[in-house]
Amino acid sequence: MLGTVLRGPGDIRCEEVEEPEILLPTDAVIKLSATCICGSDLWPYRGLQPVTEPMHMGHEYCGVVVEVGSAVRTVKPGQFVVGSFCISDNTCPHCRFGFQSSCEQREFMSRAQAPYARVPLADGTLVATPDMPADDLVPSLLAASDVLGTGWYAADAARVQPGSTVVIVGDGAVGLMGVLAARQMGAERIIAMSRHRTRQDLALEFGATDIVSERGDEGVARIRRLTDGVGAESVLECVGTQESMMQAMNCARSGGSIGFVGVPHGVQLDGQGLFFAQKSLLGGPAPVRRFLPHLMDLVLERKIDPGKVFDLALPLDDVAEGYRAMDERRAIKTLLRV
Amino acid sequence: MLGTVLRGPGDIRCEEVEEPEILLPTDAVIKLSATCICGSDLWPYRGLQPVTEPMHMGHEYCGVVVEVGSAVRTVKPGQFVVGSFCISDNTCPHCRFGFQSSCEQREFMSRAQAPYARVPLADGTLVATPDMPADDLVPSLLAASDVLGTGWYAADAARVQPGSTVVIVGDGAVGLMGVLAARQMGAERIIAMSRHRTRQDLALEFGATDIVSERGDEGVARIRRLTDGVGAESVLECVGTQESMMQAMNCARSGGSIGFVGVPHGVQLDGQGLFFAQKSLLGGPAPVRRFLPHLMDLVLERKIDPGKVFDLALPLDDVAEGYRAMDERRAIKTLLRV
Repeated sequence: MLGTVLRGPGDIRCEEVEEPEILLPTDAVIKLSATCICGSDLWPYRGLQPVTEPMHMGHEYCGVVVEVGSAVRTVKPGQFVVGSFCISDNTCPHCRFGFQSSCEQREFMSRAQAPYARVPLADGTLVATPDMPADDLVPSLLAASDVLGTGWYAADAARVQPGSTVVIVGDGAVGLMGVLAARQMGAERIIAMSRHRTRQDLALEFGATDIVSERGDEGVARIRRLTDGVGAESVLECVGTQESMMQAMNCARSGGSIGFVGVPHGVQLDGQGLFFAQKSLLGGPAPVRRFLPHLMDLVLERKIDPGKVFDLALPLDDVAEGYRAMDERRAIKTLLRV
Repeated sequence: MLGTVLRGPGDIRCEEVEEPEILLPTDAVIKLSATCICGSDLWPYRGLQPVTEPMHMGHEYCGVVVEVGSAVRTVKPGQFVVGSFCISDNTCPHCRFGFQSSCEQREFMSRAQAPYARVPLADGTLVATPDMPADDLVPSLLAASDVLGTGWYAADAARVQPGSTVVIVGDGAVGLMGVLAARQMGAERIIAMSRHRTRQDLALEFGATDIVSERGDEGVARIRRLTDGVGAESVLECVGTQESMMQAMNCARSGGSIGFVGVPHGVQLDGQGLFFAQKSLLGGPAPVRRFLPHLMDLVLERKIDPGKVFDLALPLDDVAEGYRAMDERRAIKTLLRV
């Protein structure tokens, strides 16, 4: 079959790869209904993360089970399933505590930018829909696999409550999903920090009440003015740079919470600064599995439409254009038809 | 009157100082029933914090109101009061959010190692007892002013719940109060990390269920063994060094919470490490005022006895010996009779 392989910075190809098969009794193999490109795929694509050997790309997926290993009990061939980008057994103490992304058997999914994929720990990882979903729901179900789940976790980690004031730092796909999550959690005021018109429009569509186009100190000053000098109870940090983290910290009120889901690159925090800032900080790879059943229900009941975050859809063999479009910020997020 | 002045590292004196008086209509002047020495007083005493001019010491206090300014409404002369080390108006948005230690009018108390003290923002800061408390309750009421309130905040920030497993890093007075707080909040397992016999005994008396005398990596390994390899839901960091912070981080389970109240000295946190550790972090100067009415009730009802943390009591004019005893770790905490 054809699959996506990154051979070096900027060199992404759709080329012949081995078909996945059941390797362990706990595995499933699925036929993907769609897959997509993640903002985090751009780190190695841009050479900001080393590529020492050909990397098989893709960790977001949904589709139909074609085969399961002998130990798999909860999903069966023919079912439509969604799984987290993070493989988990869903039974270990970390999973039971709701932190499946720290599962004792954690693996990160890969090789999902392809027509078929092997999913380890299928019972713990996959959630099946009751019926075969309508085709138009596939993008939104695919989003639940990572980008929506990650935005949702950012809001959860930032302790968004009904009536909260929330700031979202970062207008990438995850930030936009953070807007949607904050809205679903009942936030009253949702301030999206975004400089790009199309992203601003999507943020408003997902529930943002205010747009702040300034960044850094100017952006913080705007947030302060918008919140009577106080700052926001909850801030979602969806970028991962020192500047974005400081922006998030400074937008939060004392005693407020920051959920950070942008993988930090070169971020250093001064202990004494953090102490006197008196802000709660929780981040990490999102435990999407915790939220997955709820998110899938919201999609299936058509209460949310996270699939709108895909503003470009290409056939898998055009994957290189998909990466380019995201790298050049011509696209927010690229869906790949398989 | 005589008051405590730090003239340079190691040079602490009880000498003639000006009597406090009402400077603003929102002030009160109190006659202290007792005062004490804080672990944080040792930073400048040890020369680890610059002393550029004579410092009037003391920020923990309780006693009887002798005079109030014309704007003071909630306390009156003759009442016994306790106040936080952190002065607050208790009406600003930060105070109403429960973070009085970030009050818009925040000041830190000083000059309380003396027979009389001026308390600014008396209405917001002071809490009166219904009646004059029994003498034997004075040490415990004094403890509520800072050390108990700070240990309590550490447990609150670490989100201690009924049934929790809690680790306390640091066996100073604050750490011991953290043990007491965790017990009051219903923690099931309370693991105190302590190498000193007298402190271990006091920790057990305050409700610790386990003592771990190892530190650093060995200490973390012990905690892991005691928690089936998982780590603790809640960790109270009550020291403030890089080593103690890392110990706290590594004792917490994924998704667990660290409340840090030791003022960080030279602590740096790596963003990516914090991300993958996936632990919640909240610290800062304790908003003691939030907890003060509850803590005073617990003392007055004799449900807790935090005053036991004072293992040395001296007259004010022996203050130098009080500092020495704490510096040399001969005393956990020194009460000063005034």
